[in-house]
Amino acid sequence: MVNEDFLTMFHRLTSVGWSEENGVNRLALNEYDIQARKNLEDEMRAVKADIKQDDAGLIFGTLGSGNDNTAIGSHMDSVPNGGRFDGFYGVMSGMQLLKDLGSTLKNRKITAIDFTNEEGARFQPSLLGSGMSTGVFTKEFAYSRKDSDGITFEEALEKSGYMGEEQNRVKNQDITRYLELHIEQGPVLELENYQVGIPKGIVTMVVDNVSFTGESNQAGPTPMKVRKDALVAASRFTVAVRDMAKSSGKELTMTVGKINNFPNAYNVIPGKVTMNLDTRSPDKKTAEEYSKMAKEISEKIASEEGVPVDFKNQWTTETTIFDEDMRKEIIKSCKSLNLKYKELYSWPGHDAQYMNRVVPTAMIFIPSHNGRSHTREEYSSDQDLINGYSVLKRTVESL
Amino acid sequence: MVNEDFLTMFHRLTSVGWSEENGVNRLALNEYDIQARKNLEDEMRAVKADIKQDDAGLIFGTLGSGNDNTAIGSHMDSVPNGGRFDGFYGVMSGMQLLKDLGSTLKNRKITAIDFTNEEGARFQPSLLGSGMSTGVFTKEFAYSRKDSDGITFEEALEKSGYMGEEQNRVKNQDITRYLELHIEQGPVLELENYQVGIPKGIVTMVVDNVSFTGESNQAGPTPMKVRKDALVAASRFTVAVRDMAKSSGKELTMTVGKINNFPNAYNVIPGKVTMNLDTRSPDKKTAEEYSKMAKEISEKIASEEGVPVDFKNQWTTETTIFDEDMRKEIIKSCKSLNLKYKELYSWPGHDAQYMNRVVPTAMIFIPSHNGRSHTREEYSSDQDLINGYSVLKRTVESL
Repeated sequence: MVNEDFLTMFHRLTSVGWSEENGVNRLALNEYDIQARKNLEDEMRAVKADIKQDDAGLIFGTLGSGNDNTAIGSHMDSVPNGGRFDGFYGVMSGMQLLKDLGSTLKNRKITAIDFTNEEGARFQPSLLGSGMSTGVFTKEFAYSRKDSDGITFEEALEKSGYMGEEQNRVKNQDITRYLELHIEQGPVLELENYQVGIPKGIVTMVVDNVSFTGESNQAGPTPMKVRKDALVAASRFTVAVRDMAKSSGKELTMTVGKINNFPNAYNVIPGKVTMNLDTRSPDKKTAEEYSKMAKEISEKIASEEGVPVDFKNQWTTETTIFDEDMRKEIIKSCKSLNLKYKELYSWPGHDAQYMNRVVPTAMIFIPSHNGRSHTREEYSSDQDLINGYSVLKRTVESL
Repeated sequence: MVNEDFLTMFHRLTSVGWSEENGVNRLALNEYDIQARKNLEDEMRAVKADIKQDDAGLIFGTLGSGNDNTAIGSHMDSVPNGGRFDGFYGVMSGMQLLKDLGSTLKNRKITAIDFTNEEGARFQPSLLGSGMSTGVFTKEFAYSRKDSDGITFEEALEKSGYMGEEQNRVKNQDITRYLELHIEQGPVLELENYQVGIPKGIVTMVVDNVSFTGESNQAGPTPMKVRKDALVAASRFTVAVRDMAKSSGKELTMTVGKINNFPNAYNVIPGKVTMNLDTRSPDKKTAEEYSKMAKEISEKIASEEGVPVDFKNQWTTETTIFDEDMRKEIIKSCKSLNLKYKELYSWPGHDAQYMNRVVPTAMIFIPSHNGRSHTREEYSSDQDLINGYSVLKRTVESL
């Protein structure tokens, strides 16, 4: 398949775990993710790359020799009912670079990387693979993460066959710099008619766990005035934080994306509701301040509804600032290719965030149609895919 | 076990499917419900009752002879994480009557009944077994109901081994009258210090399905002002109907007990939320009027949030009025036993509701501690269990 062009390879391989009805369901280390990994390794073998796995399940494919090693990567796992582009585009771009530049490399190496469990949809937190491989998370922490069936990250790795060696972790290899090509996952580039986005960095993300405990009871006979309805409290909270963020006038998003209601029967007053609150801002102080205000809102509602709340921070990321020299190189590539670019912040997290802690790192974005992402409607045009790859290739060549 | 006393039998047999942590998980025709059914039939066999099953999975155990046949029953299925008393108490009381009166019956019969899928927790609607056995639901309708795994009621019946004969349905037997003993599932009797409740009837229940469809999208990069968040719309609806019912000044309850959020990931804006709304009142017009107002609220929110709503009635019950002569007999029994009783409405539905359509029917309630029900904390004292059974026995003897 070495002679296959980039678009053909991309569209063929991202179909693993895809259906028209349900989108991509390639959750970390599930059967589809494992199939995608096998396919990637087949491609790497076809160009005779040196293939390694580390003990966080990352896959590395390296060509060339010498001390300078440019890594290019992203992830192949998806959220439930996700899209075909998120993450997969970056992994395929790294793979394509091995194909295109592998035979011409002189005194330099290129490494394509597939990161494990970027989405955090199966194991929380997100960026688990890059976090462990770069030393942000301890092995003990990462391995003890459980999916909703109680399976640990360690068990899933063992079962998948992708449990590699600690010596192969990012921080134990000779990687010189890292580049990640990704869809924007937001509407800005398309709305403002740019072909390429160059992230200055990644916003701070604060993820909180919010749990209201009421009294579950038969729906009919319990008078409205004596109820302790956990879903009513959770609903008031969901609306209040949305209203607060929307009217803040700040660069800020706040989202309740996940809610579990117990016992979740039509004729039972909800007794317990747990939710995640996701708060993001380019300014870490703003994100933390609004998370704190959300906590105060939850406590006020808890008191008014007689439904105690447990509000716990799950994780907070630092605002990431990418390497300035690399960003300048990307700008040069855009100019030489005559592509219109915009510098912006990335609102989603990316593996580049943790890579940035160990080596100089930068990212390249392409437009997302209608800003849709994490859904089957996610779409970027073939021309945009090619544009982004061209910028990546030109930048790697000139670095 | 014929010589075992009522309380010992009750506590022993209701432990099937019970755990301290999770309460009773005896959902209709699951492994625990099947075990409970086997245990009930063992008890019936021990007193030499004539045992039959009908094609809705109902179990009948009859003793005696003649044209007068008093049926006593309830159900053994539970909601998820339910209590030990709801339904089970009524089935055990019928069984105990066979034990206590079976050998003395002259020119009359007693039939103990276990109804299938009363709760509607596995198959919606609730009262599926009594509805089909009394001819309210067609066989086609009942058999096509599916649980959340896509298994039909018919398949579950076949698999359970409790698929009986159409000729054994309630409406095809010679049942003269029906009595059901049950916990109140509300706080009134305990709060007002009554030992027995005598329902005048059962309130109207309107169950609606409410579904908001927004746009699922990556949580970070989608600005607050352009979001179409289905969970925010659903949350506004949940709070609005609660507020409306609470401030109505009517005899009315409105509950959102079940909510499913899609795709339910912490970093994805919810794209679709489906909910059930349960509205009850002793006055059917009130229940229907408030369900209609809830529909209007959902449409207003849908329009404001740009998140279309689909609001569909699932079912509406008539207000049930129980047989007056039988209620008078129950009052007499209470007086002769020196038990303090109160006439009231039942807010939950019961199999008695459909039995009332085919034969004269009445119910007897005992207090529920703190009004708790459909939860592992559900509790009625041994003295209350005995009181209720004594009223039932005295009433059956005098009828």
